[in-house]
Amino acid sequence: MKRYEALAADVAASIESGTLKPGDKLPSVRALRASRKASPATVFEAYALLEARGLIESRPRSGYYVARPARAMPAEPLPHPAPDGEPRTVQVADMIYGILQAAASHEVVPLGSAFPSPFLFPLQRLGRALAASATRMDPWSTVESLTPGHLELRRQIALRYLLDGVRADPDDIIVTNGAMEALNLSLAATCKPGDAVIVESPCFYACLQALERFGLRAVEVATDPRTGIDLDAMEAAIQRHKPSAAWVMTNFQNPLGSSMDEGKKRALVELVTRHRLPLIEDDVYGELYFGDRRPAATKAFDTEGWVLHCSSFSKTLAPGYRVGWVSAGRFTRAVAQQKLAASLATAVPVQMALARYLARGGYERHLRALRATMRTQRDRYAEAIGLAFPGGTRVSRPGGGYFLWVELPQGADAMALGRKAMDAGISLAPGPMFSPSGGFAHCVRINGGHPMTPRIEEALQLIGRSAAV
Amino acid sequence: MKRYEALAADVAASIESGTLKPGDKLPSVRALRASRKASPATVFEAYALLEARGLIESRPRSGYYVARPARAMPAEPLPHPAPDGEPRTVQVADMIYGILQAAASHEVVPLGSAFPSPFLFPLQRLGRALAASATRMDPWSTVESLTPGHLELRRQIALRYLLDGVRADPDDIIVTNGAMEALNLSLAATCKPGDAVIVESPCFYACLQALERFGLRAVEVATDPRTGIDLDAMEAAIQRHKPSAAWVMTNFQNPLGSSMDEGKKRALVELVTRHRLPLIEDDVYGELYFGDRRPAATKAFDTEGWVLHCSSFSKTLAPGYRVGWVSAGRFTRAVAQQKLAASLATAVPVQMALARYLARGGYERHLRALRATMRTQRDRYAEAIGLAFPGGTRVSRPGGGYFLWVELPQGADAMALGRKAMDAGISLAPGPMFSPSGGFAHCVRINGGHPMTPRIEEALQLIGRSAAV
Repeated sequence: MKRYEALAADVAASIESGTLKPGDKLPSVRALRASRKASPATVFEAYALLEARGLIESRPRSGYYVARPARAMPAEPLPHPAPDGEPRTVQVADMIYGILQAAASHEVVPLGSAFPSPFLFPLQRLGRALAASATRMDPWSTVESLTPGHLELRRQIALRYLLDGVRADPDDIIVTNGAMEALNLSLAATCKPGDAVIVESPCFYACLQALERFGLRAVEVATDPRTGIDLDAMEAAIQRHKPSAAWVMTNFQNPLGSSMDEGKKRALVELVTRHRLPLIEDDVYGELYFGDRRPAATKAFDTEGWVLHCSSFSKTLAPGYRVGWVSAGRFTRAVAQQKLAASLATAVPVQMALARYLARGGYERHLRALRATMRTQRDRYAEAIGLAFPGGTRVSRPGGGYFLWVELPQGADAMALGRKAMDAGISLAPGPMFSPSGGFAHCVRINGGHPMTPRIEEALQLIGRSAAV
Repeated sequence: MKRYEALAADVAASIESGTLKPGDKLPSVRALRASRKASPATVFEAYALLEARGLIESRPRSGYYVARPARAMPAEPLPHPAPDGEPRTVQVADMIYGILQAAASHEVVPLGSAFPSPFLFPLQRLGRALAASATRMDPWSTVESLTPGHLELRRQIALRYLLDGVRADPDDIIVTNGAMEALNLSLAATCKPGDAVIVESPCFYACLQALERFGLRAVEVATDPRTGIDLDAMEAAIQRHKPSAAWVMTNFQNPLGSSMDEGKKRALVELVTRHRLPLIEDDVYGELYFGDRRPAATKAFDTEGWVLHCSSFSKTLAPGYRVGWVSAGRFTRAVAQQKLAASLATAVPVQMALARYLARGGYERHLRALRATMRTQRDRYAEAIGLAFPGGTRVSRPGGGYFLWVELPQGADAMALGRKAMDAGISLAPGPMFSPSGGFAHCVRINGGHPMTPRIEEALQLIGRSAAV
C-alpha cells in the first residue's frame, strides 16, 4: 500500500467510525504534514482518492469536508420496451446538425452539449508540451509520423492498454482525428453501402450520423439503462439480419450511462467471435470511472481480433486537440487503408505533444481529480433535476462519465422542450437524437460536465417548469 | 513598381543585353548595397523574383549566377488514346497501400513520394507560432473553434481568396484535416453509393481511393498532358452517364502537370453550371506556379456555387500539420454535416498557429523562394531523366508544382520497374496507380520535390538502366 493509500484508508476509517461526521472539515495539508510527516503531494493524492470514492468533497477556496449523504435522489430509469429491430436507413443528419449548431456558442447554457467544461483540463501544461515539441520538431517527422501515427504516441497508448490488461502492439494502433474518425474508419473497413449494423437503443447520435453517411442500415437492439445491450436480442438480430458490424459503447454509454460487467463483456466477445462479427467498441468514457479501477474494455478478452477498440484523449485530457485512435485487431490493415484515403494522417505536432505529456507523467493525477469532480457533479445535477423536474421524472446515476439520462413522465415532448429551452438560451439533447426510429420522445440527455452554478441551476428549474406544463 | 521589382528589371535587362552572360556571378548583396543603396531585403527579393523567372540560379554557399540555358531537354508527353469512358467500380486501395507503405521510410530514395522535402518549409517559425498560440489558448476555443473551424484562420484563407480574385466569405469555408479530407467530404456531400463520378485520365490516386471507399464508380475522361481535361468528352460523359460530381485538378495536375487556361476554366464552370453538376476542384498546387502570377481557380468564375474548391497548406507551408479547407458554395451546409459526422473538427492548436503565422506576414516571401527552388528542380530532374532514361522517353515540363510525368517507350512495364526500384531502395509511382482501368502501364510519376543530390542522380540512372532492359 502506498503512503497516500494508507492515509486515505485511515481517513475513511475515521469517517466510518463516526469520528469524522458529515460536514466536518478535514485536517489541512499543513496539519497532516506536521502530524503524519506526509508530503503535500501525498495528502492531495489521498484526498483526491477519497473524493473519487464520494467520501469527501472539496469546496473552492475553503478545503476538504466529509461529504453529506445525498438528499433524496430521483429514481433511476427503467428498461424501455424493445425496439422493433427492423433495419432502417438513417436520416438524422439534418436534425442533429440544426440542434448542434444552435448550441455552438458558449453564451448558451450547455446542457445539451457533448463536451465537459474546457476548464477541467491541463491546457497550460499541454500547451507547454506542444511548444517544446513544435520548436524541436525533426523535419522528417512530418513525413514519418503520418499514418499509422507518431511512434512514441502509439507506444504510450500501448502502455496504457497494458496497464488495463489489454495486449496491444504499437503496430496495431492507428492514430486518428479523434474517436469520431476512428469509428468512421472502423465502419468503412468492415461494411459496404446498404449493409446492416447493430446499434444500441438508444445510441450516441454520432453513430447514426456515421451510418447515414456510408448508406448503412441501423438495427436497433434493446439496451438496459444499467447493464447495457441485451445479448439475447443481439444474437437474434445477428441471425435474422446478418449485420456486417455492431457498434457498442461498453462503458458509461452515451446517452444512458449504462455499463456492462466483465462477465457480460466476455459473453459479448464470445458472441461476436462465434458469428465472426466485427465489434466496433466505442470506449471514450472508460477512463472516467467513479469506482476503484478502470472497467475493462471487451478488447481485453478478444483473442481473435474481432474487436476494433476506439478511444481518444478528447474527453479525458486534450479537448480540441482531436487525437484519437483505434486498435483494430484483424482489421488493422483495412483501417489503415481507410485512414490514408479519408484524411491521410493526423496532425503531427499535436501527436508529439501528447506523447511528450504522457511520457512525463501527471496524466493519472489529472484523471483522479477529473473523476472526483465528475462524480460530485453527477450527484449535484441529479439532485437539482430531482428537485426541479415534474414528479415521476427518472434520472440515471451512471458509474462514470458526465451524462445524465432523464426520462420525463410519459407524454412529455422532448423535441418541443428542446425548442423552448433554446428560446431561453439553453441547449438540450432530446431523446429522438439517439434513435434512428425517432424513439425516446419523452427523454433528454443532460450534460453534467460543467461545474454547477446558479445559472445552470436556474436553467434546470426553467426546463423543469416547461416540462411540467 | 517596388524597389525590388525595379532592381530585378535592371538585372534582367543586363542579362538580355548580354552584359551579364550565362554562368556569370551576380553582384553580392554588399556590393549592391553600396552601389544602389538597396537594403539586403530588397536585393534578396529581387534575386528571388529573377530566380522564379528562371533567369538566375542560386548555388549554395556561393551566391547567385546567371542561369545557363538548359541542356537539350527530353520531349514532352503526347496525348494518350481516349479511355473507353465506361463507369467502373474502383479497386485500387490494396495496390496503392502496398506501394505507399514500402516507400514510407526516409531511407528510401523518395522518387515515388507525394511529398516535397520537408526542409523546404519554415518549420521553425511555424513551431514558434504554435508555441505562442498553444500557451495562450483560451479554453473556450477548444469548443468554439471546432467545425467549421477557427474564425481567424477562415478569415486569413478568405483574404487569400480575395487576392486571387475569388469572393469567399469566411462562413463558406470549412477547415478540414488536409485537402484529402476536404475532397472526401465534398464527394460524400454530393454523391450516394453507386453513383458515377467523372475523373481525369490519368488522375491522382487518392481520388480513386476516395471513390472506392464510398462505393462510387469512376468515369475516366481524356486529359491532355498540357491543357487538362477534354471538355467535349466531359460533356458527352455527363450526358451519357449522369454523374453526381466531377473531380478535376485545374492547376499543375497530379500526375500530369497539366493546367487549364482561363478561357477553358470559364468554359468548365459554364459546363457544370448548365448541367447542375457539382465540380470538386482539387487545387493544392495552385500556389506553386512558376509564372508571373497565381493561375486562377475555376472558383473565381463560379457565380452559382457549383464549385467545391479544396486546398491545403500541406504542400505550400506546413507539411504534417494536416490543415486544409473547402469553400463549398451551395454545398456548404452539406459539407459541414459531413465534417461533423466524419471527424467532428480539426485540431484547434494547429489552426490557431497557422492563423497567427499568416497574420504576421512572411508567407509570400517563403512561397517565392519555394517556387524558385521547385522550378530549378524541375529543370534538373528533367535533364537528368533525359540523360539517364532510354531514348524515346518523354518528360513533362509543368508550369508549377513538383511532379514530372515520364512516358517510357511503349512496352515498358512500370509496375515491374517499380518493384525493381524498390529492391534497390528507390520508390516510384507507376502509371497504373493513376487509373481505375489500370492504364498508363508504361508511365511513371517522378517526385522532383527534393533538391537534386548525387544519391538521387544515381537512383535515376539505375532506373533508366532498368527501364532500358
